[in-house]
Amino acid sequence: MKTADRLNRSNIVLSSTNYKVVGTRPIRHDGADKVTGRAIYGADFKITGLLHGKVLRSPHAHARIRSIDVSKALAYPGVRAAIVGSDFPEAEDKWQDLGEGNVNLKHLSDNVMATDIVLYRGHAVAAVAAISPHIADEALKLIEVDYEVLPAVLDVREAMKDGAPLLHASLTTQEFGKDTGKHSNIAQHFRHELGDVAKGFQEADVIVEREVRTATVHQGYIEPHNATALWNADGNLTVWGSTQGAFPVRDQLVQVLKHPVSKIKVVPTEIGGGFGGKIPLYLQPIAAILSKKTGRPVKVLMSRSDEFQGTGPSPASWITCRIGAKKDGRITAVESMLAMEAGAYPGSAVGAASMCIWGPYDIPNGRIDGYDVVCNKPRSFAYRAPGSTQAAFASEVLMDALAEKLGMDPIELRLKNSAKEGTRRIDGPVYNRIGGVECLEAARNHDHWKTPLEPAKDGQKRGRGIAHGFWFNVGLASSCSISVNPDGTVTLIEGSTDIGGTRTSVAMQAAEVLGIAAEDVRPSVVDTDSIGFTHVTGGSRTTFATGLAACEAAQDIVRQMKERAAKLWEIDASAVDFKDGAFSSGSNRATFQEIAGKLGHTGGPITGRGNVDPGGHGGAFATMICDVEVDPETGKVRILRWTTVQDAGKAVHPSYVEGQLQGGTVQGIGWALNEEYQFNSSGAMTNPSFLDYRMPLTYDLPMIDTVIVEVPNPGHPFGVRGVGEVPIIPPPAALANAINDAIGLRMSRLPMSPRNILEDMGVIARE
Amino acid sequence: MKTADRLNRSNIVLSSTNYKVVGTRPIRHDGADKVTGRAIYGADFKITGLLHGKVLRSPHAHARIRSIDVSKALAYPGVRAAIVGSDFPEAEDKWQDLGEGNVNLKHLSDNVMATDIVLYRGHAVAAVAAISPHIADEALKLIEVDYEVLPAVLDVREAMKDGAPLLHASLTTQEFGKDTGKHSNIAQHFRHELGDVAKGFQEADVIVEREVRTATVHQGYIEPHNATALWNADGNLTVWGSTQGAFPVRDQLVQVLKHPVSKIKVVPTEIGGGFGGKIPLYLQPIAAILSKKTGRPVKVLMSRSDEFQGTGPSPASWITCRIGAKKDGRITAVESMLAMEAGAYPGSAVGAASMCIWGPYDIPNGRIDGYDVVCNKPRSFAYRAPGSTQAAFASEVLMDALAEKLGMDPIELRLKNSAKEGTRRIDGPVYNRIGGVECLEAARNHDHWKTPLEPAKDGQKRGRGIAHGFWFNVGLASSCSISVNPDGTVTLIEGSTDIGGTRTSVAMQAAEVLGIAAEDVRPSVVDTDSIGFTHVTGGSRTTFATGLAACEAAQDIVRQMKERAAKLWEIDASAVDFKDGAFSSGSNRATFQEIAGKLGHTGGPITGRGNVDPGGHGGAFATMICDVEVDPETGKVRILRWTTVQDAGKAVHPSYVEGQLQGGTVQGIGWALNEEYQFNSSGAMTNPSFLDYRMPLTYDLPMIDTVIVEVPNPGHPFGVRGVGEVPIIPPPAALANAINDAIGLRMSRLPMSPRNILEDMGVIARE
Repeated sequence: MKTADRLNRSNIVLSSTNYKVVGTRPIRHDGADKVTGRAIYGADFKITGLLHGKVLRSPHAHARIRSIDVSKALAYPGVRAAIVGSDFPEAEDKWQDLGEGNVNLKHLSDNVMATDIVLYRGHAVAAVAAISPHIADEALKLIEVDYEVLPAVLDVREAMKDGAPLLHASLTTQEFGKDTGKHSNIAQHFRHELGDVAKGFQEADVIVEREVRTATVHQGYIEPHNATALWNADGNLTVWGSTQGAFPVRDQLVQVLKHPVSKIKVVPTEIGGGFGGKIPLYLQPIAAILSKKTGRPVKVLMSRSDEFQGTGPSPASWITCRIGAKKDGRITAVESMLAMEAGAYPGSAVGAASMCIWGPYDIPNGRIDGYDVVCNKPRSFAYRAPGSTQAAFASEVLMDALAEKLGMDPIELRLKNSAKEGTRRIDGPVYNRIGGVECLEAARNHDHWKTPLEPAKDGQKRGRGIAHGFWFNVGLASSCSISVNPDGTVTLIEGSTDIGGTRTSVAMQAAEVLGIAAEDVRPSVVDTDSIGFTHVTGGSRTTFATGLAACEAAQDIVRQMKERAAKLWEIDASAVDFKDGAFSSGSNRATFQEIAGKLGHTGGPITGRGNVDPGGHGGAFATMICDVEVDPETGKVRILRWTTVQDAGKAVHPSYVEGQLQGGTVQGIGWALNEEYQFNSSGAMTNPSFLDYRMPLTYDLPMIDTVIVEVPNPGHPFGVRGVGEVPIIPPPAALANAINDAIGLRMSRLPMSPRNILEDMGVIARE
Repeated sequence: MKTADRLNRSNIVLSSTNYKVVGTRPIRHDGADKVTGRAIYGADFKITGLLHGKVLRSPHAHARIRSIDVSKALAYPGVRAAIVGSDFPEAEDKWQDLGEGNVNLKHLSDNVMATDIVLYRGHAVAAVAAISPHIADEALKLIEVDYEVLPAVLDVREAMKDGAPLLHASLTTQEFGKDTGKHSNIAQHFRHELGDVAKGFQEADVIVEREVRTATVHQGYIEPHNATALWNADGNLTVWGSTQGAFPVRDQLVQVLKHPVSKIKVVPTEIGGGFGGKIPLYLQPIAAILSKKTGRPVKVLMSRSDEFQGTGPSPASWITCRIGAKKDGRITAVESMLAMEAGAYPGSAVGAASMCIWGPYDIPNGRIDGYDVVCNKPRSFAYRAPGSTQAAFASEVLMDALAEKLGMDPIELRLKNSAKEGTRRIDGPVYNRIGGVECLEAARNHDHWKTPLEPAKDGQKRGRGIAHGFWFNVGLASSCSISVNPDGTVTLIEGSTDIGGTRTSVAMQAAEVLGIAAEDVRPSVVDTDSIGFTHVTGGSRTTFATGLAACEAAQDIVRQMKERAAKLWEIDASAVDFKDGAFSSGSNRATFQEIAGKLGHTGGPITGRGNVDPGGHGGAFATMICDVEVDPETGKVRILRWTTVQDAGKAVHPSYVEGQLQGGTVQGIGWALNEEYQFNSSGAMTNPSFLDYRMPLTYDLPMIDTVIVEVPNPGHPFGVRGVGEVPIIPPPAALANAINDAIGLRMSRLPMSPRNILEDMGVIARE
């Protein structure tokens, strides 16, 4: 699609693609606040009369609550309220789209605070509000809960077995959209199918297959969950805190609290990372009910241990894959089974995983079976490209194995089978213009790929691996408003929490349309009362969709300023052109700033509005190359060099795109090499702290080199795609391939920690 | 003008004038916050790291500053900064419209903090910021200022005399728009003239005349001035506090601080009264410079004494009037001279006063001379219908004297001469539809006017008086945005500080347009980064102009929802009607709520924008009747009964209109009977506290009965006029007329305090 068509499609008309702002690297608008400590995060929020809430969590992975007695806690000096699950209204048994995964509202409510049964260790069972957090802590110890401990199941394969302990008495398996009536921990079994899979495998010259397991991992954002709520005397509820989506929080609160949407205001504070984990509700309804009971504002914060045990990680998985291919490398068929641990309530990322597992390739015949399985772990939620990292660890290592078997270059094999515009994915969608081929080509042409590995010394083993990944990105609703100051600067308000620099990447798009500098747009993230509905900052959507809303709001400004120019020049507005930051008609010419200065005398202020709910969000691809050195004695993997290649569509602010590429890659590396929830036999997590849950540190990492490929997305006027998620996908597979290259062992489980590597090498016995 | 025309004019189409919301009395949206103490006023605002600022004020009414030494203050433990006038940039010598009066920016800056000269006692000369307000107080005592005391002039007539001490060496009198080159305290002499005044007086059968003086009075808002400023490391300045106009504060800060508008955000807190006095800058620039120096947020609050001595009161005045009339009561000519005390810098309300003094009447020949005079008092600023109260005390008592001389009923005299649609005022404008006649008729027909006074007992004297008043109201720019929630409720953001219930009166107008309940609109007053430019809450403009912006935003919503209905029904949007809260086309019908619930599936969220800068603000009239009892021994005036009649155009929320009528009347009563700045010979105010500056208390007052007349304003779709200001105008004149009726003495000075009455009665000697 040509530029003109793309622009037309979004109702944005720009004179050229010689962008003046888009593609530059201005200083972020919130930079000084962030580096000087001025920025107010959720825990920083203060309000007069504040009480402090604390949450009591289940010590058992599965138990029936016989009774809870909060009377001693309530009697403790300084305690103002104590609540249990029955203090919440009964939520409806229906599903709601959270923008990055769906949630059943009844389950969401039960997950916020258990009523009759606890389904994981860490499940909230009661909460108190007190005049200090220390008093609240003391009060928690005085709450008496009588549990009937039940057998727990902590593994997806165990949970799927007939005879496994059942989490939900009422849960019956949905198979291919129909209720089987069978009581099971398998909430759902779905299937995507394309072509004739049996025939495809018959036509294959070679078939490879693989079965993998991945561990439960956490998003590991730096800032723990937090919420402050004030339930006012008139029923108006205000909730402050860090969230990926103030509006989705508001709309979940409507359901969990059974309170009208017009009486809930959510004020987003700054957020210290989310990665998908700050979309669902945890503390907000607890703070709200405690505030309602006390008549005072209540703040509730999580500890790191609460985070690990009480919030939704990315699911552990069990995945099998099979590929059939011709000798020349053309894939004739694939087959996959993905089973993922939803945790306590249905709704794992297996749906998204199944959309992504073969997403990079053009495959004529394929079948994907997905299983959503409950078990006695925290209810899993989104984590950066949910499910796709697990899936790629299965498929991309198998692609490597296929290349090895065929004696082909692994990039060439992928290029030969790469999806492109018009390719139909196994789960149905047909691609628009995508950049998968361009990413693979950029990797192939990269100095890293062309430079041979230097030999290892001292008995170390070296290897190189590549992997390729796909994430579909999402669109969803966003709103922006722009007002014009008399000096030609503008203010922009938006509903998108700024996690990765989107104040600036959104402002830059408005600036580009208005023909002004990025610094002349002053962006603010406002509360749910002050802007139109805006969905989560997630799904790699914000720079795409909120940027689109900003473009529309800016166009609305241009339209109105044309009218003002026309008024000044006494001509019709349709005769006024706007180009390169200036209005003109015949010999008349005025800059944006000049017309801005005359608004007061030509009819008053103007506001531009942009509200979008776009499709056309495009898909994102990333290709990574990594070199590792494995110590065969310790199993330790050291990364020597890393290159991340990714299609940004158009990089609005290249520094932020590079940051996303590096950050996503590093999270993928942590997932690959070290991160995992470790449980004891009774279902208690034994490493719920950053000391024991091992995330990568700077000295674990080389410089992550980045290559931004730009294949414009036809669904956006500047060609923007989302960039935030896809870089987490390839690292585990790329590392597994590099480790195999080094020591000749294809790891089939994550993490590929020193212990697991030594075990799989046969150096030490399996635990 | 017919309703349809009126609607058309404002580009609002409504099906009927059978309003469902406008004219009802819903509970105010911020009611619970206000009555429970949740509402955050300026002094309540808290922020981490806050320093406290205090201002040192001049002890002299006129002095040259030889030097200021802040070194000892700076050395005091806990003091973080000390500033003087030279810490501010030099402001430009140009004038800026503040919405209710103009201000010269150089003077504004000098008024914020004196540089080389102090012009009144209370003039700010230095300020400090410290870690506590008490330390700041101690530090002020350590600042050493060397003053050269100059002779002061404290009275308008004295100041006008040749040879009077001059305040400004550079000030020369502007006469009829031209610079006379004459050095004087008379900043300006202007004249309005209509017809042939000499001829008019020649045609008169009777001529009456009068000369009056009124004292300096303060707005007396409950909440003192306050400001908290944070000058961030990146140059972004945020200012919190109570103000009548966040945008005008921002724009004044641009000038006084010479800082870009895009780097200043003003966040309005709740405001505890303003009445015109919270339009100009006082503390904001001081807090800003202290913050810039310290790198920390700084809060500065005024004491009541600071308020009286350091902020702008309503000017004292000297006014002469002459009326010529035929025997039948027709006025043939009027003549007036108004001289007002601007205080330290030019810009008194004499301009507005001259527009109002004969505003109620249709007079063929008239001349009005105005003098703006500086003297050594605080720079006067707006106070509710600025200048018109003083003017009416001259003209409306003279009208009463004319009626007496002619033996006419005072209401009939006014009706005979009443201005109406088409009347040209002496200062030029021609009235559109106005309600002066209807107010007078309503007063004449009122039970109060028809019921004779009961005789007084115990030597007391009783009397009745009436007076009539006019205020022109203003329009000016306002902005609103509306977003629609899925349940059909909406959020509305606006830039107008809510002083008198405008959140609700504005929300009600949006509700009327949208066909929903007032409670289903959730209004918020937001900061200057979040909404389009909105002028002051003042000039009786907010319910009129911001209401109009809300109507436009609501119409913008209706337009977009018609498009969504059309999409659902697969028809053209032009075929969709909207009436009584429902969209329809043929047999298709959907409520506002139903379409709201489908926005997510028909293209996403919508936002409506309304930006206006309207003319057509109409003029407001009020007529008052009062009965008094005067104690001839003490001079004390007791009010027995009071009726305030006023044209609201259309009373959007009658309770708030009644509140404005009562509040304005009471302020007028205080001005009439007790309030005055008392000065000693060296220019120090001797009563700068509410103990000595006597404002009316509940037990000074009877119930203020109100009558709302509704003569729709053709400039507004619902016929709204402003109501906030005109009720302060008639009380002094009405009381003077009632006192005359009681004791046969026409008081020619304000206040008509017991002492002044006894003096004018000749019971005691003049002070």
